[in-house]
Amino acid sequence: MAQQEKLVKEITSMKEDFAKWYTDVVKKAELASYSGVRGCMVVRPYGTALWENIRNELNARFKATGHENVMMPLFIPESLLQKEKDHVEGFAPEVAWVTHGGDEKLQERLCVRPTSETLFCDHYSEIIHSYRDLPKLYNQWCSVVRWEKTTRPFLRTMEFFWQEGHTMHETAKDAIEETERMLNIYADFAEQCLAIPVVKGKKTEKEKFAGAISTYTIEALMHDGKALQSATSHYFGDGFSKAFNIQFTGRDNTLQYPHQTSWGLSSRIIGAIIMTHGDDNGLVLPPAVAPIEVVILPIAMHKEGVLDKARQLKQRLAAGFRVKLDDSDNSAGWKFSEYEMKGVPLRLEIGPRDIVNNQCVLVRRDNMEKTVVSLDELEAKVTELLKAVRDGLFEKALRRREEMTYSATNLEELKDIADNRPGFIKAMWCGEQECEEKLKDIAGVSSRCIPFEQEQISDECVCCGKSAKLMLYWGKAY
Amino acid sequence: MAQQEKLVKEITSMKEDFAKWYTDVVKKAELASYSGVRGCMVVRPYGTALWENIRNELNARFKATGHENVMMPLFIPESLLQKEKDHVEGFAPEVAWVTHGGDEKLQERLCVRPTSETLFCDHYSEIIHSYRDLPKLYNQWCSVVRWEKTTRPFLRTMEFFWQEGHTMHETAKDAIEETERMLNIYADFAEQCLAIPVVKGKKTEKEKFAGAISTYTIEALMHDGKALQSATSHYFGDGFSKAFNIQFTGRDNTLQYPHQTSWGLSSRIIGAIIMTHGDDNGLVLPPAVAPIEVVILPIAMHKEGVLDKARQLKQRLAAGFRVKLDDSDNSAGWKFSEYEMKGVPLRLEIGPRDIVNNQCVLVRRDNMEKTVVSLDELEAKVTELLKAVRDGLFEKALRRREEMTYSATNLEELKDIADNRPGFIKAMWCGEQECEEKLKDIAGVSSRCIPFEQEQISDECVCCGKSAKLMLYWGKAY
Repeated sequence: MAQQEKLVKEITSMKEDFAKWYTDVVKKAELASYSGVRGCMVVRPYGTALWENIRNELNARFKATGHENVMMPLFIPESLLQKEKDHVEGFAPEVAWVTHGGDEKLQERLCVRPTSETLFCDHYSEIIHSYRDLPKLYNQWCSVVRWEKTTRPFLRTMEFFWQEGHTMHETAKDAIEETERMLNIYADFAEQCLAIPVVKGKKTEKEKFAGAISTYTIEALMHDGKALQSATSHYFGDGFSKAFNIQFTGRDNTLQYPHQTSWGLSSRIIGAIIMTHGDDNGLVLPPAVAPIEVVILPIAMHKEGVLDKARQLKQRLAAGFRVKLDDSDNSAGWKFSEYEMKGVPLRLEIGPRDIVNNQCVLVRRDNMEKTVVSLDELEAKVTELLKAVRDGLFEKALRRREEMTYSATNLEELKDIADNRPGFIKAMWCGEQECEEKLKDIAGVSSRCIPFEQEQISDECVCCGKSAKLMLYWGKAY
Repeated sequence: MAQQEKLVKEITSMKEDFAKWYTDVVKKAELASYSGVRGCMVVRPYGTALWENIRNELNARFKATGHENVMMPLFIPESLLQKEKDHVEGFAPEVAWVTHGGDEKLQERLCVRPTSETLFCDHYSEIIHSYRDLPKLYNQWCSVVRWEKTTRPFLRTMEFFWQEGHTMHETAKDAIEETERMLNIYADFAEQCLAIPVVKGKKTEKEKFAGAISTYTIEALMHDGKALQSATSHYFGDGFSKAFNIQFTGRDNTLQYPHQTSWGLSSRIIGAIIMTHGDDNGLVLPPAVAPIEVVILPIAMHKEGVLDKARQLKQRLAAGFRVKLDDSDNSAGWKFSEYEMKGVPLRLEIGPRDIVNNQCVLVRRDNMEKTVVSLDELEAKVTELLKAVRDGLFEKALRRREEMTYSATNLEELKDIADNRPGFIKAMWCGEQECEEKLKDIAGVSSRCIPFEQEQISDECVCCGKSAKLMLYWGKAY
């Protein structure tokens, strides 16, 4: 077991240095590594497989709600980016500019897309003519670039991977419903598939997306008490439609502007998975998206029949699960550590004595609980235990979030919590941006969202003491 | 049927103007449309679904041969691109350069990847240390950018979509085997899934990839007699390994350089599908990658029971096929034209009389053959007919290629064929680049490949008359 201890020691403990623990997990679990390109990461096979599973799960949900994938250009000409004023102001400072093609200087600069509202609108202006063309429910999977100063794998990188949905609707009502529908899909995906509890709410004016009328968000709380905005859904009204001159003939035969939404979830959700479920032994993956759901480790592999049995079990499980058999020469101890580090939800141990007894041992990654299982009911037990892992992860994360959510009724109290107790702070707000900025300056917290589930914590704004009707979640954020 | 005629008339006939026919099909079948970004296309839902099916088919083949997907950075710093001399010379003139991030001028320019050998090598130098780390069999799906002057959707665009495999091996033999394995996978995919017959061969020194020792290719012949390079597979030896200082400890405990391959297939394969199978009614799609394999068109839809029956059939077929029911108000004639234009392999017609007779009509897109099918054996017949469509398409394309493949034994003959009969020209070559260039100048043909299946057309080089042992395919190319 010497080797196992050594491996475990290789990562910094969460308590010692949470940021270092995070990057250690990213590297040792082989999710990603730094590249020679500043601020860009190499997503390694294990991280890519995780992202592909996330994509497949979301694609199925998008398709079931009538959405179609498209592929838009990587570049946005400067004049196109400038068509919507708020949008360009929000994004121009952080885009990468292409100025030369080969040796030739371009007449017009192109930016590498930081988001694609402008490209979609340009296309929609070509293809939307009648109410019969609506709704348009498009989505794309791609990478986008934002010129960030400091970067961390998955959480904040210059290039990141995401999906961006862009839809056009006949009425404001339809578009607002879509905005909410997609937020609910994200919330359901986060909670059911990723076992990450989230708070659903609306961003304040200050925090909303550049060009949007309103931005909805799901906010998750990480192990260290910092918040992570996990997906957003925006309602644009007809602002872009007007800027891009997108018009359709309505049912009443008048020319109208369609109403727009966009919504996105990015590779930073992998950061959320790591920081919600991970522990000092490494990654812990929610089964629905784990590249390997069950790893089979033969015990006393050299003994007759063990490897054959392990292969049989692999074949059986492969029919319904993502399964890996590790029949390498590495020691059992090394393998235990390795797959704990990689966060594989279930470990299946099979040795000579198990074979005699027609059984195997299943070990849950989330709580290390062992269950001896008859091989006759293997598939059923694996299904049951994978569900138990998801439920266990969700319950644990929910409990932690509840324990780390505080209420404050005045500035002093809020500052004291912000300084000493990491987590969400629920507090009333008068609605003035000035108070929002003051809380940021004094206590270092930003508004996370105006949750859909409101509570009346007190009657006054936590900052200015004026009458306040909105309860907000505040916190430090990634 | 007036509307059907009208729709058909909307596209230019192949004979009249092949290039215009091509762009008409791209637009009317809604595969792609031009974007406001010069040289970049918008791939629409139907084109994206086609590309996703291509990706799924190839991914399954890559996975079955042990390959893993990764995601590499979009940018290559100038210094990294310059590490391998032949490679940078080949690509530097056609890359897009990022010079500014926000308002800041970059200290080092970044190019948008035109291909990712340099990025993979940079990463491999970090993770390859021992022969135990080999082979590394990575692939990525992404878009790349090459600064093209004139562009056409799918065939030549500034940004295009592709997969690029990059592998590292212990020995030259292993790497060469991989290069051949991947070429064979491409050829098999092209012929079995896309029904496109291809010639497998090796590129000449002049035509090989920048930095490669040898480039293998599959070449297909389009309807108009022009060749289309449909996928390539490159063997690099250890040139990049040395340039990037990638070294591993071998089995004999000495430091060695690994041997490298790369291979790619791009969205121009969609151009090949269009120009191999399409006709004057539009697109014709090979079933294996068609977004819709069967379209169900209810006839006399308003009659009682028709729509219910159509929905029943859709549900039955959806279990095993990609199926669409068009229950819109458009006329049957309009629908016939629409799905012919979109190249749906099978059309299923169901009307009141069919229901009484417990039957339906299946119509093949490739030859418009109608088959009356008992509903009791619907699934079996659909399977059979989809296979027949694939076989029919392949046979037709193969016959055409054979008819359009000529032999030439001297320059005059070759020039005469090149001027008057579009197609492949088989001719002997002495091996001198001078002759290759001369044929380009005089007859406007380039060497397509040195086919693996050699024939002795004559004993002398078609150009200089010197002794020649190699038979080449020559032609005009996209």
